[in-house]
Amino acid sequence: MALMTGEQYIESIRNINMEIYMFGKRVDSPVDDPILRPSLNSVRMTYDLAQIPEHQDLMTVISPETGERINRFTHIHRSTDDLRNKVKMQRLLGQQTAACFQRCVGMDAFNAEYSTTYEIDKKYGTAYHENFKNFMFYCQEHDLTVDGAMTDPKGDRSKAPHEQDDPDMFLRVVERREDGVVVCGAKAHQTGIINSHEVIAMPTIAMGPEDRDYAISFAVPSDTKGMLMIVGRQSCDTRKLEGSEIDVGNAEFGGMEALIVFDHVFVPNERIFLNGEAEFAGMLVERFAGYHRQSYGGCKVGVGDVLIGAAAVAAEYNGAAKASHIKDKLIEMTHLNETLYCCGIACSAEGQPTASGNYMIDLLLANVCKQNVTRFPYEIVRLAEDIAGGLMVTAPSEADMRDPKIGPIIDKYFRGVYEVSTENRLRILRLIENLSLGSAAVGYRTESMHGAGSPQAQRIMIARQGNIEYKKNLAKAIAHIKN
Amino acid sequence: MALMTGEQYIESIRNINMEIYMFGKRVDSPVDDPILRPSLNSVRMTYDLAQIPEHQDLMTVISPETGERINRFTHIHRSTDDLRNKVKMQRLLGQQTAACFQRCVGMDAFNAEYSTTYEIDKKYGTAYHENFKNFMFYCQEHDLTVDGAMTDPKGDRSKAPHEQDDPDMFLRVVERREDGVVVCGAKAHQTGIINSHEVIAMPTIAMGPEDRDYAISFAVPSDTKGMLMIVGRQSCDTRKLEGSEIDVGNAEFGGMEALIVFDHVFVPNERIFLNGEAEFAGMLVERFAGYHRQSYGGCKVGVGDVLIGAAAVAAEYNGAAKASHIKDKLIEMTHLNETLYCCGIACSAEGQPTASGNYMIDLLLANVCKQNVTRFPYEIVRLAEDIAGGLMVTAPSEADMRDPKIGPIIDKYFRGVYEVSTENRLRILRLIENLSLGSAAVGYRTESMHGAGSPQAQRIMIARQGNIEYKKNLAKAIAHIKN
Amino acid sequence: MALMTGEQYIESIRNINMEIYMFGKRVDSPVDDPILRPSLNSVRMTYDLAQIPEHQDLMTVISPETGERINRFTHIHRSTDDLRNKVKMQRLLGQQTAACFQRCVGMDAFNAEYSTTYEIDKKYGTAYHENFKNFMFYCQEHDLTVDGAMTDPKGDRSKAPHEQDDPDMFLRVVERREDGVVVCGAKAHQTGIINSHEVIAMPTIAMGPEDRDYAISFAVPSDTKGMLMIVGRQSCDTRKLEGSEIDVGNAEFGGMEALIVFDHVFVPNERIFLNGEAEFAGMLVERFAGYHRQSYGGCKVGVGDVLIGAAAVAAEYNGAAKASHIKDKLIEMTHLNETLYCCGIACSAEGQPTASGNYMIDLLLANVCKQNVTRFPYEIVRLAEDIAGGLMVTAPSEADMRDPKIGPIIDKYFRGVYEVSTENRLRILRLIENLSLGSAAVGYRTESMHGAGSPQAQRIMIARQGNIEYKKNLAKAIAHIKN
Amino acid sequence: MALMTGEQYIESIRNINMEIYMFGKRVDSPVDDPILRPSLNSVRMTYDLAQIPEHQDLMTVISPETGERINRFTHIHRSTDDLRNKVKMQRLLGQQTAACFQRCVGMDAFNAEYSTTYEIDKKYGTAYHENFKNFMFYCQEHDLTVDGAMTDPKGDRSKAPHEQDDPDMFLRVVERREDGVVVCGAKAHQTGIINSHEVIAMPTIAMGPEDRDYAISFAVPSDTKGMLMIVGRQSCDTRKLEGSEIDVGNAEFGGMEALIVFDHVFVPNERIFLNGEAEFAGMLVERFAGYHRQSYGGCKVGVGDVLIGAAAVAAEYNGAAKASHIKDKLIEMTHLNETLYCCGIACSAEGQPTASGNYMIDLLLANVCKQNVTRFPYEIVRLAEDIAGGLMVTAPSEADMRDPKIGPIIDKYFRGVYEVSTENRLRILRLIENLSLGSAAVGYRTESMHGAGSPQAQRIMIARQGNIEYKKNLAKAIAHIKN
Repeated sequence: MALMTGEQYIESIRNINMEIYMFGKRVDSPVDDPILRPSLNSVRMTYDLAQIPEHQDLMTVISPETGERINRFTHIHRSTDDLRNKVKMQRLLGQQTAACFQRCVGMDAFNAEYSTTYEIDKKYGTAYHENFKNFMFYCQEHDLTVDGAMTDPKGDRSKAPHEQDDPDMFLRVVERREDGVVVCGAKAHQTGIINSHEVIAMPTIAMGPEDRDYAISFAVPSDTKGMLMIVGRQSCDTRKLEGSEIDVGNAEFGGMEALIVFDHVFVPNERIFLNGEAEFAGMLVERFAGYHRQSYGGCKVGVGDVLIGAAAVAAEYNGAAKASHIKDKLIEMTHLNETLYCCGIACSAEGQPTASGNYMIDLLLANVCKQNVTRFPYEIVRLAEDIAGGLMVTAPSEADMRDPKIGPIIDKYFRGVYEVSTENRLRILRLIENLSLGSAAVGYRTESMHGAGSPQAQRIMIARQGNIEYKKNLAKAIAHIKN
Repeated sequence: MALMTGEQYIESIRNINMEIYMFGKRVDSPVDDPILRPSLNSVRMTYDLAQIPEHQDLMTVISPETGERINRFTHIHRSTDDLRNKVKMQRLLGQQTAACFQRCVGMDAFNAEYSTTYEIDKKYGTAYHENFKNFMFYCQEHDLTVDGAMTDPKGDRSKAPHEQDDPDMFLRVVERREDGVVVCGAKAHQTGIINSHEVIAMPTIAMGPEDRDYAISFAVPSDTKGMLMIVGRQSCDTRKLEGSEIDVGNAEFGGMEALIVFDHVFVPNERIFLNGEAEFAGMLVERFAGYHRQSYGGCKVGVGDVLIGAAAVAAEYNGAAKASHIKDKLIEMTHLNETLYCCGIACSAEGQPTASGNYMIDLLLANVCKQNVTRFPYEIVRLAEDIAGGLMVTAPSEADMRDPKIGPIIDKYFRGVYEVSTENRLRILRLIENLSLGSAAVGYRTESMHGAGSPQAQRIMIARQGNIEYKKNLAKAIAHIKN
Repeated sequence: MALMTGEQYIESIRNINMEIYMFGKRVDSPVDDPILRPSLNSVRMTYDLAQIPEHQDLMTVISPETGERINRFTHIHRSTDDLRNKVKMQRLLGQQTAACFQRCVGMDAFNAEYSTTYEIDKKYGTAYHENFKNFMFYCQEHDLTVDGAMTDPKGDRSKAPHEQDDPDMFLRVVERREDGVVVCGAKAHQTGIINSHEVIAMPTIAMGPEDRDYAISFAVPSDTKGMLMIVGRQSCDTRKLEGSEIDVGNAEFGGMEALIVFDHVFVPNERIFLNGEAEFAGMLVERFAGYHRQSYGGCKVGVGDVLIGAAAVAAEYNGAAKASHIKDKLIEMTHLNETLYCCGIACSAEGQPTASGNYMIDLLLANVCKQNVTRFPYEIVRLAEDIAGGLMVTAPSEADMRDPKIGPIIDKYFRGVYEVSTENRLRILRLIENLSLGSAAVGYRTESMHGAGSPQAQRIMIARQGNIEYKKNLAKAIAHIKN
Repeated sequence: MALMTGEQYIESIRNINMEIYMFGKRVDSPVDDPILRPSLNSVRMTYDLAQIPEHQDLMTVISPETGERINRFTHIHRSTDDLRNKVKMQRLLGQQTAACFQRCVGMDAFNAEYSTTYEIDKKYGTAYHENFKNFMFYCQEHDLTVDGAMTDPKGDRSKAPHEQDDPDMFLRVVERREDGVVVCGAKAHQTGIINSHEVIAMPTIAMGPEDRDYAISFAVPSDTKGMLMIVGRQSCDTRKLEGSEIDVGNAEFGGMEALIVFDHVFVPNERIFLNGEAEFAGMLVERFAGYHRQSYGGCKVGVGDVLIGAAAVAAEYNGAAKASHIKDKLIEMTHLNETLYCCGIACSAEGQPTASGNYMIDLLLANVCKQNVTRFPYEIVRLAEDIAGGLMVTAPSEADMRDPKIGPIIDKYFRGVYEVSTENRLRILRLIENLSLGSAAVGYRTESMHGAGSPQAQRIMIARQGNIEYKKNLAKAIAHIKN
């Protein structure tokens, strides 16, 4: 079959019986839950756009192995063009959803597993690469969405996995059987897990020999016995329950994150991609993180495009579009946003093939990319709030606007330029609120900070990749210093 | 009587019958409304602290006119010490509430009216100063909270009041009677109006002769016939309805803002402080804005103290308190916060007496103060989000935590350092969420941006007050350029 | 012949009899002048590196027209790989010289002329493209350095060329003859002109029909009759006269800039590339500026590498290399520098073919690149000054160090870690001084600001290229606003 | 006598026979040396302005002990008004000199010694306070300029004084005699030493018991036997030798720094203020640094005023004064500069009396002040370079301008707006160059970075003074966390 329609995707998720909890209750039908549905719609967009001829080249590729057309989210990058197209696809999706579309973690896990399993096998004669490829072909064929589960709860951050007071603070093997392993633990901040068919688990840090039981990677269906998910709260989450299209800012799209608990989950041998080869945990983490830090140079740029557009619309509705300081702020927002895009493109264009043949981004530049993403969206938001004006946080509810008595008063007093309806003015302000303070701010701000690793993680990589010794030698040569 | 207790204050507000709307319904008892009550508690703190001997010197003064002890919020500044103490009082209140305590607008309106009415009378022989002083004595005697209402809806921002398509876009006199005037219009973004006994209306911009009917200032009780308030939505507002103490982050304190509509409100002559003397509108605006821009160098610094503290607690609970980058970020937050305080203190210390005898802050430095407030809290928030970690936006609800099945899982997996309870860890993260994305972010971020005038308004004042011609002459003298 | 050695290049410049003035005197032998020679050495590096097999792929290309190996500086970009290699070549040269190597303006002028002349001819049937190609082949064959002369003196910046009080404020045709034109005017800030064999003149702004006489582009040898150059002063320029290798910081390499005056210079028809087709002036400017803004994402990054290295060496010599704040500052410098590189690479990777077949960089991203170059080098310098310590500006002269009495005192008291000689410590500090305050700061700071257009010029281009209308539509779609 | 005229001051310095070296030679008459004279002129301004009635209140005070009018630079602060007036005096002097006027270090040393000696005596029954007061009265009576010498060479920064390979890396007592002590060592970066009558030496860091011999403070005349000074190079220093008034940018004023070597210098008992009481070294350092960090909130602001003015003049001469981005950049420069001033004023206004009765600035805010000074002047310079345009670094020499042939060409082509002479345009650009890259940049940039302690020193103090535990408790109270 290869490519699913958006509708087929929705139904395929409806048919998975995941154990999901939210607000102290089991969620029976997450697909129909008003808080969760927008996140499903965002993932759906990765299917819908793949059906549109105009976007076919970006959204899909012909699989080099099977000759079938597959969704790019299930593809292994074979060139720097592939890497750049990934970033462009992500920008497009960010523009269409103004939210996190969640499917990237799986794509990034695919590409990290592909090359890492190849190198483990080469050293140990294991069959992880074959295992992984079979899983990959299965996902490509059925056009599945896969969650990439890396972040362990970590407990006390100053301690290694085996030093934690509670040994489950990092996901680990608790039993080794003939036909597979049994794992316990959890993965936190799992973006899009409830909208995923499968989940790939990976370690979250480089490990030493004592952490052998924690060096485990595998894939299982998201409704595997022993797994449960607890959905995290987001700013303004329950506003989606009120039935107001305007007040939520973005009525159609959103994101979600959850804790996945693995309570004695069995993983069959053929789904295992790493099992005890502790020294490869670091490689897997570094590559996944590298790809994922590249991703932010695409998706967040797309969301930034919407926010810049929204600020420009707000300025127009306020009657302030011609003020030079407003124009200058829009330029600054654009400049910062495109700087992020430059980083996403550059680490792609400078990609190199791995031993397995797939393409890896430039690690230094991908970390530089993500580091900027921990800064510029915050400044873009600040400028958007500046342009929007205070009404963004003092405007009344849609319920007031629809009220026969209060509605006309709101209509009268919250009108900006006379030609634009008050409703449209409030709609655009609510969108800016959504991205600045509301549920989308979780994705556009905090996730930009911590997703794919917190700022300090990138700084460590920049230090490691920056080749300071080479630069010291350059300086000594110019200064005529002989060592 | 002079000073009310907090309890008396609550009851005094309960007895006012304001016409308040929210979510399409009239609010019968705002004092008991879970969304609005936290904002009342914040104002109450201005009464509670005045009762505590330790804070008496900061919170109260002996009135130079009556010899009675009055709350500083009703006081006319008589020295630069008064101005500095105002800022210190505001910092203290910000620390105690982590929210906007709302009573400052009235204090700032008092001081602007005091000197401006004096100067109008001197030119026109009017009795505005006497009117204002009588009103002031009344407020001091009854320890009232007064809303300062300045910001008109403004409609199309590129047009003057009399040019608007709808003449009510700025508050105006629609009828002049023997015993007073009748006004129509509205005031937007009214912080704390529903927790106020009285409201002082002021024009929002400098005006020319054509805007004469818009040059009106007065005070009326907040339940005056013809007035109604529509409460604005805040991020996460309805979370307060859920009954969770933890999830709201700050269970006790908050802020609120509303639109006040004046629908043919009658104002008696003795309550009028400006009426058609259009050239004084600018002075009143400039002075009020000046005082209010000073205020932000106190209140937001206090809130910043709480956020810095919360980030430090979160780091400790995460087991990351000793990481050098964490310590450095806390230093940076402190540095930025204290820079704001420096600006609040400096514009106070450099204050000067007006013709009426009360003290005015240094206008240039007060605008510099506020301009920094439109920047640094955003960076402080960004650093707090960095330190807090992603859990701040992916943590589950208190309902999950209290659930017999899910609760223990949460307790296990969201624990940081082993010695600290998961509940306490979630409490501190929710407080950071509240200040970064939630209802307090409205006050700490967006209000820091637009309250007391948007950034561009300060830049215009900085240009006007910066004396660039003097600086040009300094440069020419050094460069030996003769004009 | 095709490729010259560095030595041959020096001799070829020696043989040109340019009319050069400096400090009120004609410079007889600029090649041997101690102030000017370092700038010649920098250009020479573009020849020397082309001879080194290791750098051959970056420094040279096989001409697609002639099959000869030519220096990349005379090449027309035929692919995005060419564009990226240009940036990498520039970074390499920046690393080797820690200065401006000056030859880029000619390369950028080549590529702008190539496509623009093609489009003019297409519209007007002129022969500019042929003219230009002949000139290009000549330069490729003889491996010449070409100055790209764009910036007119401009006089009063608020006036168009034809409105200036003095008509020569922009270079213009003063006589049209059968066999060519005669031009008058000047070009300011001409980087490397005295080290160039030829100069290409281009207009500096978009022009209207009234500016027809100013719409002129051509190439002439740099010793053409009627031309003279006045060398501009640089910070610490005369320090090069003192004979101290240490005190100059960078004893071998430097940059230079001059005013070129065209006093009735005759240009033969076959060397004319634009002559009165005023509407094409803008295209030529935009394309040249675009290429040149890309360039800064290479050359300044290379200089930045040296400065980062120098700061790291200084920290080591100070005994401070292990302090966490020092390490963090080096990371930040690296991060900023690589962000610039990302922009240089990205605008190259996203390049597109023009109608003439050569490749144009992405205009939006190239402007974003340069805009960042007007900011980050300043912050990199600031951090370098922080790490270096105050001794950078209080260290005594080499003359003191060589003095029998004073020398040992300096050796004793200015030693940092005991193992490193005081001389080496001073050498590295002088290099940092050179890049921060000295003659190289002219290139690394002020030229980063104004070269290839001042910051505001990029902002105008970002506004024009940013497609804000498209972004507004994205936002309206998300907010469900129908126009 | 009390107050000297500027002329008297010059003569008094001429009469001191200091041993000064520069460029490998002893300087016979520093007062007449073209490189050094401008720094003397800057100090002279502290005498000249004290003679002008308009500035009398700022520049002088009536000594509370003697009733004599003394220069404020020799005064002990007795109130927060004194502290604020100090800052205002410094701003005034910065405006008049656009340079470092050097006399502050002595004033700051005075105030630190005053209170510290008092507290040592109280603990140990020593007579340091009396010693110091006698020295102070002598300086007040003769209106002397005193150098405050704190910074030791420090050698390897990772080692304590007694751990250094060379024991002289910190100034120390090498012999204790009946009538005094003999000291060896050096003090680096001594601002204004050659223009000073006396020098006060102080330790540079907090010390432990093993560093007892390094815990020494005293005052000696600047021509004491055994002392010599080696003058440090500054950017563009030798330009002052060329005889061009224009090219130096600031022909009259400048700064200077030198190394002072103490080669077995004898200090009599009555001039000793600390001698072995190692635990008081930290107090003396902290207080001196605190006062000196306050100082930067005055002097650098004054220099900033000149730079802002110069940029505004340049914009006018370029014909760009009305461009909105230019106006905005001038506002930003003003905003940043006044923020520094706020910090200087605030730490003064919040000053407190010490045990000795003199007034100490608020230590936290003074460190915040200096920390901002390590940032904002760099940004102000960057903006000035932006406004000035590239001509600032490519303009020819005055010698060219005066040349009969070249002069008219320069006059023609470097004219901006037609009404302003080219000479004036070049004058203002040279002043900006002087402050951005030239000799004054040493004072305005690098000294802003490292003077009174490098940035990290302030961060350590901010951490220490920021009371993070108190802030943590505030946060816990709001979050309802019981410890």
